[in-house]
Amino acid sequence: MKWIIVPLIIAVLIGSSVVSWAAELSEITEECLDCHRTVTPGIVAGWEKSRHANIISAEALKKPTLERRISAKAVPEQLANVAVGCAECHTLNVERHSDRFEHNGYDVQIVVSPEDCATCHPTERKQFTKNIMSHAYGNLYNNPVYRDLANSINGIQTVTNSKITLQTPKIEDELDSCLSCHGSVVKAVKVETRNTSMGKMKFPVLEGWPNQGVGRINPDGSKGACSACHTRHQFAIEMARKPSTCAQCHKGPDVPAYQVYQVSKHGNIYNSLSGDWDFSAVPWKIGEDFTAPTCAACHISLTVDNEGEVVAERTHRMNDRLPWRIFGLIYAHSHPKSPDTTIIRNSNGLPLPTSLDGVEATAFLIDAKERDKRRENMQKNCFSCHDSSWVHGHWKRFENTILSTNAMTLASTKIMQQAWQKGVATGLADKESIFNEGIEKEWMKQWLFYGNSTRFASAMMGADYGVFANGRWKMAMNVQQLMDYLEFKLASKDILMKNEQKKENESNKK
Amino acid sequence: MKWIIVPLIIAVLIGSSVVSWAAELSEITEECLDCHRTVTPGIVAGWEKSRHANIISAEALKKPTLERRISAKAVPEQLANVAVGCAECHTLNVERHSDRFEHNGYDVQIVVSPEDCATCHPTERKQFTKNIMSHAYGNLYNNPVYRDLANSINGIQTVTNSKITLQTPKIEDELDSCLSCHGSVVKAVKVETRNTSMGKMKFPVLEGWPNQGVGRINPDGSKGACSACHTRHQFAIEMARKPSTCAQCHKGPDVPAYQVYQVSKHGNIYNSLSGDWDFSAVPWKIGEDFTAPTCAACHISLTVDNEGEVVAERTHRMNDRLPWRIFGLIYAHSHPKSPDTTIIRNSNGLPLPTSLDGVEATAFLIDAKERDKRRENMQKNCFSCHDSSWVHGHWKRFENTILSTNAMTLASTKIMQQAWQKGVATGLADKESIFNEGIEKEWMKQWLFYGNSTRFASAMMGADYGVFANGRWKMAMNVQQLMDYLEFKLASKDILMKNEQKKENESNKK
Amino acid sequence: MKWIIVPLIIAVLIGSSVVSWAAELSEITEECLDCHRTVTPGIVAGWEKSRHANIISAEALKKPTLERRISAKAVPEQLANVAVGCAECHTLNVERHSDRFEHNGYDVQIVVSPEDCATCHPTERKQFTKNIMSHAYGNLYNNPVYRDLANSINGIQTVTNSKITLQTPKIEDELDSCLSCHGSVVKAVKVETRNTSMGKMKFPVLEGWPNQGVGRINPDGSKGACSACHTRHQFAIEMARKPSTCAQCHKGPDVPAYQVYQVSKHGNIYNSLSGDWDFSAVPWKIGEDFTAPTCAACHISLTVDNEGEVVAERTHRMNDRLPWRIFGLIYAHSHPKSPDTTIIRNSNGLPLPTSLDGVEATAFLIDAKERDKRRENMQKNCFSCHDSSWVHGHWKRFENTILSTNAMTLASTKIMQQAWQKGVATGLADKESIFNEGIEKEWMKQWLFYGNSTRFASAMMGADYGVFANGRWKMAMNVQQLMDYLEFKLASKDILMKNEQKKENESNKK
Repeated sequence: MKWIIVPLIIAVLIGSSVVSWAAELSEITEECLDCHRTVTPGIVAGWEKSRHANIISAEALKKPTLERRISAKAVPEQLANVAVGCAECHTLNVERHSDRFEHNGYDVQIVVSPEDCATCHPTERKQFTKNIMSHAYGNLYNNPVYRDLANSINGIQTVTNSKITLQTPKIEDELDSCLSCHGSVVKAVKVETRNTSMGKMKFPVLEGWPNQGVGRINPDGSKGACSACHTRHQFAIEMARKPSTCAQCHKGPDVPAYQVYQVSKHGNIYNSLSGDWDFSAVPWKIGEDFTAPTCAACHISLTVDNEGEVVAERTHRMNDRLPWRIFGLIYAHSHPKSPDTTIIRNSNGLPLPTSLDGVEATAFLIDAKERDKRRENMQKNCFSCHDSSWVHGHWKRFENTILSTNAMTLASTKIMQQAWQKGVATGLADKESIFNEGIEKEWMKQWLFYGNSTRFASAMMGADYGVFANGRWKMAMNVQQLMDYLEFKLASKDILMKNEQKKENESNKK
Repeated sequence: MKWIIVPLIIAVLIGSSVVSWAAELSEITEECLDCHRTVTPGIVAGWEKSRHANIISAEALKKPTLERRISAKAVPEQLANVAVGCAECHTLNVERHSDRFEHNGYDVQIVVSPEDCATCHPTERKQFTKNIMSHAYGNLYNNPVYRDLANSINGIQTVTNSKITLQTPKIEDELDSCLSCHGSVVKAVKVETRNTSMGKMKFPVLEGWPNQGVGRINPDGSKGACSACHTRHQFAIEMARKPSTCAQCHKGPDVPAYQVYQVSKHGNIYNSLSGDWDFSAVPWKIGEDFTAPTCAACHISLTVDNEGEVVAERTHRMNDRLPWRIFGLIYAHSHPKSPDTTIIRNSNGLPLPTSLDGVEATAFLIDAKERDKRRENMQKNCFSCHDSSWVHGHWKRFENTILSTNAMTLASTKIMQQAWQKGVATGLADKESIFNEGIEKEWMKQWLFYGNSTRFASAMMGADYGVFANGRWKMAMNVQQLMDYLEFKLASKDILMKNEQKKENESNKK
Repeated sequence: MKWIIVPLIIAVLIGSSVVSWAAELSEITEECLDCHRTVTPGIVAGWEKSRHANIISAEALKKPTLERRISAKAVPEQLANVAVGCAECHTLNVERHSDRFEHNGYDVQIVVSPEDCATCHPTERKQFTKNIMSHAYGNLYNNPVYRDLANSINGIQTVTNSKITLQTPKIEDELDSCLSCHGSVVKAVKVETRNTSMGKMKFPVLEGWPNQGVGRINPDGSKGACSACHTRHQFAIEMARKPSTCAQCHKGPDVPAYQVYQVSKHGNIYNSLSGDWDFSAVPWKIGEDFTAPTCAACHISLTVDNEGEVVAERTHRMNDRLPWRIFGLIYAHSHPKSPDTTIIRNSNGLPLPTSLDGVEATAFLIDAKERDKRRENMQKNCFSCHDSSWVHGHWKRFENTILSTNAMTLASTKIMQQAWQKGVATGLADKESIFNEGIEKEWMKQWLFYGNSTRFASAMMGADYGVFANGRWKMAMNVQQLMDYLEFKLASKDILMKNEQKKENESNKK
């Protein structure tokens, strides 16, 4: 630790924009702060530590291109020479917002949407619109297959004798479940008067609130929530670059990126040595600012080499660097062309990127050429530390694992198909859900958890997670135990039938 | 990081009590240290970094009320003007301690109990006595239902043919299991002579030792262990305020608070930005000292706003801020009135807060008015960063999730009740354990892990843990697969019976 | 945090070798850096922060014995007076390396092996050779029982009707699975020409690469990879001492050391207070440099007390301090004598340290006297903070848990043996794998995950992991549910047989 003090002291003596800049606040923001410093001290203090509070846009615009954190060519006049305070965001495009309300003489909106952030950050906004994440709400809830899957999880089940009845989920349960990450529909539904420390005041009541899901449908109709990763009200780039931010939605067995990172060499370096890295530098200099990538470094950030030359361009369309989609569906497959995946149709006419046997719906997915391009985009970062022998060796192994995990999923699916055919589970042929029975849940684990996890572990070299924790061991077991599950279902059906036949015979005799 | 150096350097120049105070040590403590600096260098060094070693009680008593870390109005004369060293705690109330022994001319006790700590910290001690945690030992081991559950886990099972026999657990296994967190009974059972680097010496041998469980029964008869959270011998408030402390007992699937925190927005802010927070300030100023709550901030700490006004009073009775008890029992329910839960009787006369169908034993649980009060206690912290739309929206969702998870537990319980009725498992009607068969273990998962986890994920907004990791997905699956489990048990019983009938028939024929 | 600044500033003023030393580079290394600063900026920057880059061996050799980080008595002349740069390692013993190639006029090797590191670190190398970890590849792949286990996990399964066929694993899948931690065989198989930013160049293509497994078979024939823990190219001792390094291979349920540490008191202290510890000091002073042990402190590091007296000698044969082997095999057992465990034969002639009933293959395992010695080695560290009452109480509990978990494994094994005998699974008597059926996988969990985990939780006092997360609860459940599994298999076999008999009878009638 000792050797980090010298440059720090020098930095302090020289001063830095964050420390020394005393950005002027707009009059309205001053007025907001008069009350909110006391009413909501936590978020005001967070904001005070932010770059938004300590720099004005006019200065931010003067920075050299690579150092700019603002992608607009110009900003509205009233914003240019004041800090980005309460009013600058919460009164910005208020006329578009159904959640606007009159508050102490001003029209204020509760929710700040990507459309609002786009005033200063239009490039990021535009990229994010093409990011599949911005469609996370619709891709789940407007896809009948996936809506059915969600219902099978969120609906309350009731039991009468040996019959289970699945109810339609309550919206409250959905908001507390899938929609927490996928995003909710946020709408003002009424106005109510509340007693506050400042007396009686009127506030809109929002439906679907609180929510910070990445595909949120905002009161201005826009899709997404920048605050999903750029947490209010500090909006620290440091935070967006740290893996714990991604962990909020990417730790569970369905998308275990964080779990895998933790046991990867990259994660190990991060966890052991990142205390003296610079997480705020723009652009982000490989080696000097950090010696191992975080999630953001590989997937999003603008990185440069030791001479300041661009290694990877910043992108908020994360799949720019991803040839394959390795989670969330029955088989890993080439990335969809459109961020709106509800338009996809497989060979059976279902809105899925592959058939149940794993054949890709190629018309809707990127081709080999585009995959090559995206693989190269990602590899640019790899090559900053690894030679081609390493990089190609790794990718060959990863792409083999995609094939192997798909093959293991096919094995389980073939068993499941027998269960449907032999009548011990009801499926598509019966016009029934393929997700709401015990044996179906067992089958789903193979692709929803184990196949995915094995692929993540491969992609990010965190084998500890991909063998026993949630990977190959479980894939192997799934095939074998699913076959036993089928056998037991067939046996108990057989007995049930015989007993009923016997009863029938006996009642016929009488 | 740069901007944190300036205030730090200023702080150093001004000096701080911890740095500059050279607290005098008592003669006895000096004597202890003469040997123990070398014999147990680790704990001596820890203590040397502590506030105990660097301040005297007389000075601590002079601080303004909100800044005081000591709740006694006065301390015994011999403690007032020396640092709180070895002797001050380990010879304090030695006459009350069955673990006392003569050591180099002094009467010394091995274990320091909450009763000892209460000399300077009586308010915390009093609150903790009413905290359900201080009864953790008895609430588990003096409740026959819960004792049976513990036995079903800790007892060794032996197998002879198709018969499993469960033995009564060995105390060593219990100490290594439940009692590690719940606390053990610590008693001096004999004295033995040991060879030490200082020659032969006599020491008491303690039963139930080592243990730092929160409900420990100490050699002076008191309940609890302050060191469960305020770890010896640094006793840093910083540590008690950090989530890894709570994780020691609250990470497993039975009480996954830490797991949920890690994927919550609060946890994300803590993990990304807490490097420059002040975890030692008393009182704890929201915004200035920290910008997102840790476990302690919501559940225990004295927090103040930016003007130093109290937001939440410190409490060591954690359920002061908790209307609902969401884990550890079959259904979530209103908090018990008494910390001693062995006195509760449900409608079936069992010492459980609800019936097997989920009906509350209302006479023993807090009512709606008290729940409202506790909810408001908790919400005071919420409002420091969130508006009422957010806070009420969140609580509405959480309290709906309590209902939904209880409904899902009821569904599984109805299946289990069929298993008992149809004779494929033995239960209360058979005067048998409801925890020691395969299908019973499967049922238990629904409430011991999945229901709880879903509620924790809701309470702390960590949905990633509450959907696929250990929540709603598993609750949904549990109902379906438990029904299949029942079906398989019925089928195999049917075959067994037929085969036995057949054998009987055949032997009758002969 | 305030009080850490003063010593830091003093340290800075005094200067430190890492800061002030301007080690001269060899000419060849300068040449390497000319290109690689730009070609692979990440690893060059990492190396620049390393001790290797900032000190020369001749100076390192002058340090007092306990402070030395280099165990050679002398180093080759050409290395003595330059920093340890690219060329010093990558051209060192090139004639022994099958991965050598001509690169810009120099013979360069890609992989640096323990044999290369031994030039300066021979003692560590020698110890590691006797460490069971250095044999991790062969112990898995040259043991037919364990090879079969690995195959049952890594082989792709295909399903035709109700028949599952297990294929021999592809090497790519093995590299991405077990071999990732156990180590691969790395060999140069051909040379290829690649387009680089410097024009066309020839490079060897390595098989089994990338790999950093602890038992890697290197291109020079040596075993092991120092970089498994001492990560390239910073080689920070700080990193090797931090638990996240061990987590790479010791987090999964098969060896959950990291998981247990996280919920132990030691882990809690580390996670809360290690911000101001000194992870780079050699020797490592207990109390002053750290107040709670990390993995390295207990298992590897050279630790001293406050007077600089040695508490524990450094060892890279980790089992020097371990009497018992508590994971990876069916029963916990005394440590093997030889690091090559393929030579072991149990009473059935299998290469396993115990019989299926748990009886030790004593001829191949250490005896009670050696166990006592190793227990004492470990306890030396314990005694630095704990008295003998604590230490012996803990060990008594741990060694009881070894017995209890072995007993619970025996219970499950007895059920499994019935399954083999009654013909619902095929085993050794059928000359078949004992790992590739559903019920066998269920049995394996008992010892591969639950028994191990319970023992780790006991050994490191992390009971939260050892009860519900992955310990005693699951052991108890395994016995009960495995018995049900057997019952269901027997029942469905019965039905299958009857149905086939019926069919036969019917076809006989016709």
